[in-house]
Amino acid sequence: KMNVESFNLDHTKVQAPYVRLADIKTGEHGDTIHKYDMRICQPNQDHMEMPALHSLEHLMAELSRNHSDKVVDISPMGCQTGFYVAMINHDDYDGVLDLLEGTLRDVLEADEVPACNEMQCGWAASHSLEGAKQIAQGFLAKRDEWTRVFA
Amino acid sequence: KMNVESFNLDHTKVQAPYVRLADIKTGEHGDTIHKYDMRICQPNQDHMEMPALHSLEHLMAELSRNHSDKVVDISPMGCQTGFYVAMINHDDYDGVLDLLEGTLRDVLEADEVPACNEMQCGWAASHSLEGAKQIAQGFLAKRDEWTRVFA
Ligand SMILES: N[C@@H](CCSC[C@H]1O[C@@H](O)[C@H](O)[C@@H]1O)C(=O)O
Ligand SMILES: N[C@@H](CCSC[C@H]1O[C@@H](O)[C@H](O)[C@@H]1O)C(=O)O
Repeated sequence: KMNVESFNLDHTKVQAPYVRLADIKTGEHGDTIHKYDMRICQPNQDHMEMPALHSLEHLMAELSRNHSDKVVDISPMGCQTGFYVAMINHDDYDGVLDLLEGTLRDVLEADEVPACNEMQCGWAASHSLEGAKQIAQGFLAKRDEWTRVFA
Repeated sequence: KMNVESFNLDHTKVQAPYVRLADIKTGEHGDTIHKYDMRICQPNQDHMEMPALHSLEHLMAELSRNHSDKVVDISPMGCQTGFYVAMINHDDYDGVLDLLEGTLRDVLEADEVPACNEMQCGWAASHSLEGAKQIAQGFLAKRDEWTRVFA
């Protein structure tokens, strides 16, 4: 068994898009970190292009925190098929789906990518608001499939 | 002021490579999440290529957990200039530097990228062990500069 949770997941058996509870880590004082696997593209068949992924990272990281103060981290997967969403003391799966839905609806309304300039970003030239919106739109269109992880 | 910590960081003033404590989040029960900004490339001048970044993600995510059970998450930045490392109940900055150093030394010793196949990975074709080792080597070579964040 591997240390990394997703290395024990059979990526040939999943069916994107989905949102999956990947891991729960409990601190010694009793706080819990729930990590969700937000899978946008079908593994080994499709992936997000980096400028669109990068813009979606900025948008989700900023806008999700207008909905919840329990967001610990939203980060892309190196495989470019999805994001990991880490929440503190938030074990409500349906609540996380609502958070993601609300955040992605905000993405569709955005006029610009937050912080897409050389002062606020590590690679200001690598952005695509249009690409981020297309990903958000496609994921939202399959909202009723998010809870079904395996084909 | 933006919600995302790094959107309030002046990326034109930092000098990579560095490791910076970016955020501390304390749960209502008293556990703390420390998030570190492990910056490998100089913002808006250089970036990691995705296959190398992806392999380094796999290697660090798996190997770091052989050194510590306090790793919550290691994830790439969408700007491709670094990684975020989230730790639970680990406020020892020098200890985190040692963890990263030990992990990257393991990367240099690796014979293969863990889980770089279609069952265990979202994009098995997008990997470069050689690229990941080159990044690790370059970062390790500047070990004495990791604590200096600003130019
Ligand atoms: N995962 C984190 C930050 C997301 S935005 C990350 C961006 O910060 C900047 O330094 C880079 O442009 C990078 O792409 C979080 O959720 O807080
Ligand atoms: N940030 C997480 C997982 C890292 S490996 C992530 C990989 O899982 C797989 O689904 C994809 O190939 C992806 O690239 C962690 O630290 O646990």
